[in-house]
Amino acid sequence: MHNIQITGARLLDLRFPTSRESIGSDAVNKDPDYSAAYCILDTNQAGLHGYGLTFTLGRGTELCVEALRYLSRFAVGRSLEEITADFNAFSNLLTGDTQFRWLGPEKGVIHLATAALLNAVWDLYARAEGVPLWQLLAGMPVEQLLNAVDFRYISDALPREEAGELLRARAAGMEQRLERLRATGYPAYTTSVGWFGFSDEKIAALCDQALAEGWEYFKLKVGGEPASDLRRARLVRQKIGGRKLMMDANQKWDVCEAIERTRALAEADPWWMEEPTSPDDILGHARIRRETGVRIATGEHCQNRVMFKQLLQAGAIDVCQIDSCRLGGVNENIAVLLLAAKFGVPVCPHAGGVGLCEYVQHLSVFDYLRVSASLDDRVIEYVGHLHEHFTDPVRIRNGHYLLPEKPGYSAEIYPETLATYNYPQGTYWRLNP
Amino acid sequence: MHNIQITGARLLDLRFPTSRESIGSDAVNKDPDYSAAYCILDTNQAGLHGYGLTFTLGRGTELCVEALRYLSRFAVGRSLEEITADFNAFSNLLTGDTQFRWLGPEKGVIHLATAALLNAVWDLYARAEGVPLWQLLAGMPVEQLLNAVDFRYISDALPREEAGELLRARAAGMEQRLERLRATGYPAYTTSVGWFGFSDEKIAALCDQALAEGWEYFKLKVGGEPASDLRRARLVRQKIGGRKLMMDANQKWDVCEAIERTRALAEADPWWMEEPTSPDDILGHARIRRETGVRIATGEHCQNRVMFKQLLQAGAIDVCQIDSCRLGGVNENIAVLLLAAKFGVPVCPHAGGVGLCEYVQHLSVFDYLRVSASLDDRVIEYVGHLHEHFTDPVRIRNGHYLLPEKPGYSAEIYPETLATYNYPQGTYWRLNP
Repeated sequence: MHNIQITGARLLDLRFPTSRESIGSDAVNKDPDYSAAYCILDTNQAGLHGYGLTFTLGRGTELCVEALRYLSRFAVGRSLEEITADFNAFSNLLTGDTQFRWLGPEKGVIHLATAALLNAVWDLYARAEGVPLWQLLAGMPVEQLLNAVDFRYISDALPREEAGELLRARAAGMEQRLERLRATGYPAYTTSVGWFGFSDEKIAALCDQALAEGWEYFKLKVGGEPASDLRRARLVRQKIGGRKLMMDANQKWDVCEAIERTRALAEADPWWMEEPTSPDDILGHARIRRETGVRIATGEHCQNRVMFKQLLQAGAIDVCQIDSCRLGGVNENIAVLLLAAKFGVPVCPHAGGVGLCEYVQHLSVFDYLRVSASLDDRVIEYVGHLHEHFTDPVRIRNGHYLLPEKPGYSAEIYPETLATYNYPQGTYWRLNP
Repeated sequence: MHNIQITGARLLDLRFPTSRESIGSDAVNKDPDYSAAYCILDTNQAGLHGYGLTFTLGRGTELCVEALRYLSRFAVGRSLEEITADFNAFSNLLTGDTQFRWLGPEKGVIHLATAALLNAVWDLYARAEGVPLWQLLAGMPVEQLLNAVDFRYISDALPREEAGELLRARAAGMEQRLERLRATGYPAYTTSVGWFGFSDEKIAALCDQALAEGWEYFKLKVGGEPASDLRRARLVRQKIGGRKLMMDANQKWDVCEAIERTRALAEADPWWMEEPTSPDDILGHARIRRETGVRIATGEHCQNRVMFKQLLQAGAIDVCQIDSCRLGGVNENIAVLLLAAKFGVPVCPHAGGVGLCEYVQHLSVFDYLRVSASLDDRVIEYVGHLHEHFTDPVRIRNGHYLLPEKPGYSAEIYPETLATYNYPQGTYWRLNP
């Protein structure tokens, strides 16, 4: 940490042509090209960099990159120590910029860009300390963790003092929990079997394969024709027996339709129904939950901690699906982990895309070690794409994420990948425009 | 309307250096440079164009312009008739773009850009019909109005059929209401007396001036030191006597603090407290309203109809402050006018900035003629800056907006202004970088 100065920021628009294989397809997102606004922070120390990203679906990534270009000015020229000594103050420089703020506040393009930059700073911090991010967080004194959180607008639900008490109360038993993670890893579920664009035959074959790999939790995309949804749900249920089946409608329905459709799909015993309606509809989710009795999950499109606070206050969700890149970086994810713990709701992070699996494993491990202190009803999403581009990819064994071991936040991408998928100048895009 | 084709879109980043005079300053927005992402749609008809904008505060306007550049592709090459025949289908092309949507959905930068484009198309439509926008809307058959609205995600609160019934029920008496507007205009309030950066002396002098001009409603910015807020509130109250005083905290407070501060300021009898906390906090606004008994207003940062729906469902607001540029253009504003009418909450639009006064007068006139059919507790915000740049500026008489008379949606800006304030190439910015 001694005298590390951030000397520059390199920003890239990275796009992978995933839409050409229906990878990532669902009822709403028909043709995603998994993409990232990617940030490399340079320092005055040879070989020391911070790598961060925000996940996008292709078009529009350039907007996040441009927002990141502006926000990165707040990092360049600052010392790492100055930032981490009062991490929330630094985060507020990004979210509170008096002119930029109008474009949010704390939502959409500018907040996605904020996430990429904060994630890069956290990566740099963990590398400087020579530990994986989860370990850095797990070892932090309570006050330092609280200093990274913006309690503004959530203090009515969770005052800072109460968050501190919660963290202190959960300290006991951390060593045993860490032992358990070292032994078996953190439980995961797979979304790779049931994409919207896959045929029944492909789904059946992928279920067989996933069962052979030891998976216990399976997610199916729904939100198509009612008969088709039910047929696919029965197919997966028949394949996986008594294992857990989650369903994901990706915001396809209005509230009344969601109630009707969720009731119809209850036959296949969903462990949760995910994103049944608009991600902005807190009261709608609460009503769907109340009127169907099915466990409700949402969060990958939940824009910030203020919305998560209300989802929890309203009793709208059974499962809190944080997104490492939509929330304002590690800082705001810590805030939401604390809120969820206060309300007793399990956090099962959204992952997939590009880099999200690499990210959220750190957050869930920290959640288990320091915040929730529980694995009950907790699983991290896993999707098997694009990991080969990362220098420290996730490692899955028997349906579990193994503990990351390398220093940092696991988002460093190989230089060859950057050269290939940089948009539109990269070699892939020049050859396949 | 015959065979009008949109042949191109010209997009500009316009910035006015308002921060240099503390104009527009409040407790959160300390140094706004009133700005706009501005769109000129060209057509195959000589002299026929559509002018639209979204309002911003300076930095970040370029992001809206870039988003607009992408979205404008959906308009160019289409006929006006094709768009207006199913206006919601066109709007859905913009809000539902499968890759762009990830950056929202329907919020932040991409939604601001959507607003600018839709506003430009509505301006073109009204010009093609040779009438002011309010008149175009006021004369539309019910089904055509409904076809402009996206009922997705709001149908649980307001099904399309119910919206149609509401519009039909309010048809009676429109001629008399129009007479009334022609005679006296639409009531307005002034925000120009109480900006945050103004001294007590300046506020006192501006109050005297506004009283002499016939104003009956005055807004004061609060959210500073408690003693300072109260001193300023007493000053304005003393100046204006029994006239209405609104207060605006611009999101400064957490929920508990907002309750305490609003109670303390109740001494000066606020007609409403505006933006007491985060614009995302529906449940927080409901609690502040419940626990203070003061009328609560919000909306200028309310990102879309789904949020307004919940503010109304939760009983969180007494005053619905639509924003003509943050909501997705005229289309989504119609949706929110209908929702507010359903819930019996008066709409008092946010205005000021640049172009917002020009815009919202049309929406409020339409609201009175066709939707709410009432002027009770309804006033449009008015701020006296930057109108000189518009070819059809608002006209205020005796504290009322006079009916716009020229064809269109009143957002055309003089070419000289475009040449001067285009950023960064305009003459002003080259001379005053």
